[in-house]
Amino acid sequence: MQSSRLEAFSDGVLAIIITIMVLELHMPEQKTFAAFFHQTGLNLLTYLLSFVYVGIYWNNHHHLFQVVQRVDGLVLWANLHLLFWLSLLPLTTDWMDETHVATDPTAAYGINLLGAAVAYFLLTAAIGRLPGGEELRKALGRGVKEKVSPVLYVVGIGLAFVSPWLGQVPFVVVALMWLIPDRRVERWLAEDRG
Amino acid sequence: MQSSRLEAFSDGVLAIIITIMVLELHMPEQKTFAAFFHQTGLNLLTYLLSFVYVGIYWNNHHHLFQVVQRVDGLVLWANLHLLFWLSLLPLTTDWMDETHVATDPTAAYGINLLGAAVAYFLLTAAIGRLPGGEELRKALGRGVKEKVSPVLYVVGIGLAFVSPWLGQVPFVVVALMWLIPDRRVERWLAEDRG
Amino acid sequence: MQSSRLEAFSDGVLAIIITIMVLELHMPEQKTFAAFFHQTGLNLLTYLLSFVYVGIYWNNHHHLFQVVQRVDGLVLWANLHLLFWLSLLPLTTDWMDETHVATDPTAAYGINLLGAAVAYFLLTAAIGRLPGGEELRKALGRGVKEKVSPVLYVVGIGLAFVSPWLGQVPFVVVALMWLIPDRRVERWLAEDRG
Amino acid sequence: MQSSRLEAFSDGVLAIIITIMVLELHMPEQKTFAAFFHQTGLNLLTYLLSFVYVGIYWNNHHHLFQVVQRVDGLVLWANLHLLFWLSLLPLTTDWMDETHVATDPTAAYGINLLGAAVAYFLLTAAIGRLPGGEELRKALGRGVKEKVSPVLYVVGIGLAFVSPWLGQVPFVVVALMWLIPDRRVERWLAEDRG
Repeated sequence: MQSSRLEAFSDGVLAIIITIMVLELHMPEQKTFAAFFHQTGLNLLTYLLSFVYVGIYWNNHHHLFQVVQRVDGLVLWANLHLLFWLSLLPLTTDWMDETHVATDPTAAYGINLLGAAVAYFLLTAAIGRLPGGEELRKALGRGVKEKVSPVLYVVGIGLAFVSPWLGQVPFVVVALMWLIPDRRVERWLAEDRG
Repeated sequence: MQSSRLEAFSDGVLAIIITIMVLELHMPEQKTFAAFFHQTGLNLLTYLLSFVYVGIYWNNHHHLFQVVQRVDGLVLWANLHLLFWLSLLPLTTDWMDETHVATDPTAAYGINLLGAAVAYFLLTAAIGRLPGGEELRKALGRGVKEKVSPVLYVVGIGLAFVSPWLGQVPFVVVALMWLIPDRRVERWLAEDRG
Repeated sequence: MQSSRLEAFSDGVLAIIITIMVLELHMPEQKTFAAFFHQTGLNLLTYLLSFVYVGIYWNNHHHLFQVVQRVDGLVLWANLHLLFWLSLLPLTTDWMDETHVATDPTAAYGINLLGAAVAYFLLTAAIGRLPGGEELRKALGRGVKEKVSPVLYVVGIGLAFVSPWLGQVPFVVVALMWLIPDRRVERWLAEDRG
Repeated sequence: MQSSRLEAFSDGVLAIIITIMVLELHMPEQKTFAAFFHQTGLNLLTYLLSFVYVGIYWNNHHHLFQVVQRVDGLVLWANLHLLFWLSLLPLTTDWMDETHVATDPTAAYGINLLGAAVAYFLLTAAIGRLPGGEELRKALGRGVKEKVSPVLYVVGIGLAFVSPWLGQVPFVVVALMWLIPDRRVERWLAEDRG
């Protein structure tokens, strides 16, 4: 199968995930800004965080598939596995909101992020097996961000049991860390073609 | 009409189906993992099963359309017929969840899967009529999985009346059986071009 | 703007409309088929009707854009106007369901279909102005189905005030009439290229 | 990254935003047109306004990306930033509806439109940096509409505190002003190629 089809489908799923999260946000019944900030203000922040995370995955997803033209069944399912974890983000985000950032929901959010990170790692491994993939392995080689992210998720999950708000810190740090799209693959492509 | 348009539209519908199912999952109002596993744990499993089924249909759908370039009105409606059955999956999945896997909802889920399987069979027949389609007929020729799946769905529907949980077994077996994408078409394409 | 972009966007919107309608279907809280048929059976029929209508518009939409390569601002807004009416279908379908096919909701459904038909007519007129469009005007020239459909919608709206169920008849007739995709454009294209 | 991918993803998100807004519309439980106009009539108008706004952004979005072939990380995030603001439109529209166009919700709607306008401005600036972008800067050069729109939004936000209905006027005026797609870029492209 051509990777373009898989990318188009993934684009569709990610576009839906990023957009339906807003359906979980509920405006207050009162008509004042005070009520809005009290009831929806927090949700808006967690929505923003999850929005950024889906955006990050979308960005990196594309960089990933720039090196291969065709994919096989394993890549296909590794990709669906990643989409499965990402599709749960609206749910865990919502739980965190509804419970006003309680301990277990924060840990659940971290587990969700960790699951997506593991799925992303497995996807890169599955692509690495394909023709052209060895270049991806080289490009991602040292992969500092990939190695640091899961560690930070685990730290966040642990901190959630100390204080749920403290647990958010590593999640926000990873998001900021990844906001810069993966220039390593871009660089490698530029060098290779240059 | 070019088959690429039909595939893009189907991709869109399947992406939405696979993603909106998560909207039917509801997190507990309590803030503990115990409450989560009690209320949402089961739903997560049925969600996973339906997610895999939509993933399977997406995979096989693409293999199907690799052999034809252009489609006619009959293929178009056979395809919409398949999408209709798949669009009901979030509904029957939800019913099964809400009733904690009761007898009739499990049978309804099986009927939904059976309907999709029949629609898929009709779609392959409609494509088989087109130029290039005789190759698809040959490739799918013996079609063991295609013949076994509906039988297993019927077994599952029957078993649901013995025990709803037992009825799930054939549904899971079919899903596992299909997780491996249809290599016959791939093989035929490889041979043909080789 | 190239028509391919407009088609892709319309495909997306139509895919979402056709799929979110299922979110309006609600399964019974009871766990029996009897409860299902009593509560959801009717909804399933109206869902099927609206599903077929969106399918019809999707089919004809593509035929329409096969004759032009580039579109202008007027076509763009004529297209969004059509999508607006179609986006209301889930709503009027739902109202008809919730009121168990009452008079006014049935008339509202007919008005929705009529609005979409008028929007479709305006879209064909807007495309007819473009280079290549005069061929479309010729191809659709006598346009029996296009002229009969609005008349039947008006008849259905009128009949709704006699009996809502009677009012459904013309809506179903139009759907069946259009199930056959528009072969006139296909034929013209075939002749032109032949 | 090629701009076509970014456009496809944005198309998907915009198609979902424009369509899920209809999910916020609720039909009356009564079965009369009177009840419909009383409960849903107003919502339909605000839905129409937001539908037109998303349509406008979709139109202008495409014109924007006609001048560049490849985009970088900054454009990517500037684009996601715009989509974030637009994804909030269903929410603020709904709040305005639920409160029957109260003061703060009207101002919130205006702030949402203002946020999107600022994000659009930042996106044009980010694209203007790219090869080919200086032409866009020239084309949008005097940008009367771009400069007038934010001013009118601020006027609308201010007027909302006088009378929420009066506050709607500038929002409707901007929508009407933009209904004509951006011919400046089209003109420039035509001249450049001519």
